[in-house]
Amino acid sequence: MSWQRWLAEQREERERAGLRRALRPRALGEDVLDLAGNDYLGLSAHPEVRAAAAGAARSWGAGSGASRLVTGTTTLHGELEAELADFTGRPAALVCSTGYHANLSAVTALADRDALIVSDAHVHASLIDAARLSRAAVDVVPHNDVDAVRAALEKADGRRAMVLTESVYSVLGDAAPLPELAALCAERGALLLVDEAHGLGVVGDGGRGLVAGLGEAPQVVMTATLSKSLGAMGGAVLGSPELVEHLVNRARPFIFDTALAPAPTAGALAALRLLRDRPDLPERIHHRAARLAERLGVTRSAGAVLSVPMSSPQRALAAQDAARQAGVRVGCFRPPSVPDGVSRLRITTQAGIAEDAWDRAVEVLAGVVERHRRAA
Amino acid sequence: MSWQRWLAEQREERERAGLRRALRPRALGEDVLDLAGNDYLGLSAHPEVRAAAAGAARSWGAGSGASRLVTGTTTLHGELEAELADFTGRPAALVCSTGYHANLSAVTALADRDALIVSDAHVHASLIDAARLSRAAVDVVPHNDVDAVRAALEKADGRRAMVLTESVYSVLGDAAPLPELAALCAERGALLLVDEAHGLGVVGDGGRGLVAGLGEAPQVVMTATLSKSLGAMGGAVLGSPELVEHLVNRARPFIFDTALAPAPTAGALAALRLLRDRPDLPERIHHRAARLAERLGVTRSAGAVLSVPMSSPQRALAAQDAARQAGVRVGCFRPPSVPDGVSRLRITTQAGIAEDAWDRAVEVLAGVVERHRRAA
Ligand SMILES: Cc1ncc(COP(=O)(O)O)c(C=O)c1O
Ligand SMILES: Cc1ncc(COP(=O)(O)O)c(C=O)c1O
Repeated sequence: MSWQRWLAEQREERERAGLRRALRPRALGEDVLDLAGNDYLGLSAHPEVRAAAAGAARSWGAGSGASRLVTGTTTLHGELEAELADFTGRPAALVCSTGYHANLSAVTALADRDALIVSDAHVHASLIDAARLSRAAVDVVPHNDVDAVRAALEKADGRRAMVLTESVYSVLGDAAPLPELAALCAERGALLLVDEAHGLGVVGDGGRGLVAGLGEAPQVVMTATLSKSLGAMGGAVLGSPELVEHLVNRARPFIFDTALAPAPTAGALAALRLLRDRPDLPERIHHRAARLAERLGVTRSAGAVLSVPMSSPQRALAAQDAARQAGVRVGCFRPPSVPDGVSRLRITTQAGIAEDAWDRAVEVLAGVVERHRRAA
Repeated sequence: MSWQRWLAEQREERERAGLRRALRPRALGEDVLDLAGNDYLGLSAHPEVRAAAAGAARSWGAGSGASRLVTGTTTLHGELEAELADFTGRPAALVCSTGYHANLSAVTALADRDALIVSDAHVHASLIDAARLSRAAVDVVPHNDVDAVRAALEKADGRRAMVLTESVYSVLGDAAPLPELAALCAERGALLLVDEAHGLGVVGDGGRGLVAGLGEAPQVVMTATLSKSLGAMGGAVLGSPELVEHLVNRARPFIFDTALAPAPTAGALAALRLLRDRPDLPERIHHRAARLAERLGVTRSAGAVLSVPMSSPQRALAAQDAARQAGVRVGCFRPPSVPDGVSRLRITTQAGIAEDAWDRAVEVLAGVVERHRRAA
């Protein structure tokens, strides 16, 4: 088939299914309350974080100039790695350009044709791609089903096995049964990769994430993003110094990629320091998320993400639009971006919004969800 | 095998082969001439580029907050996309978080199990990973061998076919036979993906890259990085509006990744504008690269990268060290980071270094290479 015809067919298929996406640029200073983004603590816009990012661009330049292994590693990267490891209670950390790169790096450097990957059915696209790229055998198990993980590991048959999970899931906002998974992996000699993209800064003691609560846990490899609670961009892999050394030598998406730029590196570092000093920020997420869930009549989630199921993709879009008209931006997730095929509003609790504005957003959303329920 | 034992074995293997890599952080204001990085035009440190990056961090914040499809797309992204497309003569552009993401996005959204990928043997790790991740059949052909590409395309057998190449190769610095490849792909109804990571800002009219010289060329998909000549970080895919729309809807490494942060977006935009106004910068690369190649007694390359083969990995490291002692940093590439198994110094021509300092660097390197030749 010709490329032109194929592209046209793909496009028609999307339009038939009502699933066409488009980019809508936002302007500076838009008058909208953002409950769609993942900058849960509002740190991206915090004066100290902005100043740190701007200062690094001014003193170091706009880019890092080369791969981390050539000349791209700056003392800034080293500082951020040391403080990330310290904050989350892991022995060592390695900073990557994105959270996607972090997951690709960790999984592909560890798993190969001789390994078995047991993956929770709800893990993020970056982990699915990572598993595929690794060429390991992949066994996808039902969501949060520890018995299914156990059964899969029992079939490892001498292969190195690695279990993939998120600490707090990105779309539904529920938490993984980490203590059980960690114990099972320790028992079976498997690695447990925990993606803390939506855990760091939100859950656990002072926002340290859920891995911190497991103690030393040498069987756990943690990944994180610097693009959500830390308000910048980038990712990290955390674990033993041996793991980090292995990645530096073997992880292609780390080795063959230009280092994270100075501004987001310094921004994430400043955000991490604020988070360390401000345990009230993750606390505020919990209070607000609990109240919001109650007001919307949905079950409380583990972290900042609230998922509100909608009766159809079209109704989900209409509800998102109605909220936007009333000055509140929320996410709208439709297939194939949802793990269970159910279209939904994805609402993120924001600690950075002032109290009165937050109350206003809650009331707007309560109205929108109420009208959807009556119409559905 | 246990993970611990596997990691230890992998490490021992590297040490036996003398191929252990380590990160060496550089400090601010180090007194060294950097001929290792890919910031060929010195734009990362240009006052206007620093100021633009810093200004964006101050006004927009340290991060973009969400995926491009949720709230991550800012008007800054839109401006950069429009100006990148305009500069390179492509109809449309899509900015990604890294050049790696750009290649993963373009290839995986276009090629699938029903497609055939014909890949030059020397393409970058990101294209190799992209091809693997796409699950297409992959036929790797000898470097710069148009007849081999033709033969591979003749076996496409009705499948959509895509040829992968770089415009200027990253390690050896040679150019692809783009006009021949473009004509062949047009004739066979194949797509030609050209990675301009090391072409943009360096080769072609005013640094527009080599794709610009092909004219309209609708069969060409171009990818680029914002992390090299544009001195920031990020990547882009350039082609038709239909291609961009397809990627926005289907490229998982684009859709499920937080948008490029404001500072590098604005930094790349400022660098692009400088490049547009300063055709003398790529010119300077050519003069310097020609003289350097002559002085080192190696063949002139197509772009900014000069490859100097060394007689062994150890000798390559020793030569790199000797240059470093004399105040000049160059890259040292050893297996498996070289496409042909030959260890080498990778020296990058830099337009941003002042004339007298550049002359000094050339003399240092001439001495190092001369001593290596006598010893080998
Ligand atoms: C669970 C999870 N992992 C990884 C990522 C990728 O992180 P990044 O956006 O920094 O590439 C995301 C979101 O984008 C995510 O939600
Ligand atoms: C040819 C080529 N393509 C893609 C990339 C990836 O670009 P980035 O470093 O922006 O991820 C690089 C270098 O890193 C490269 O040399």
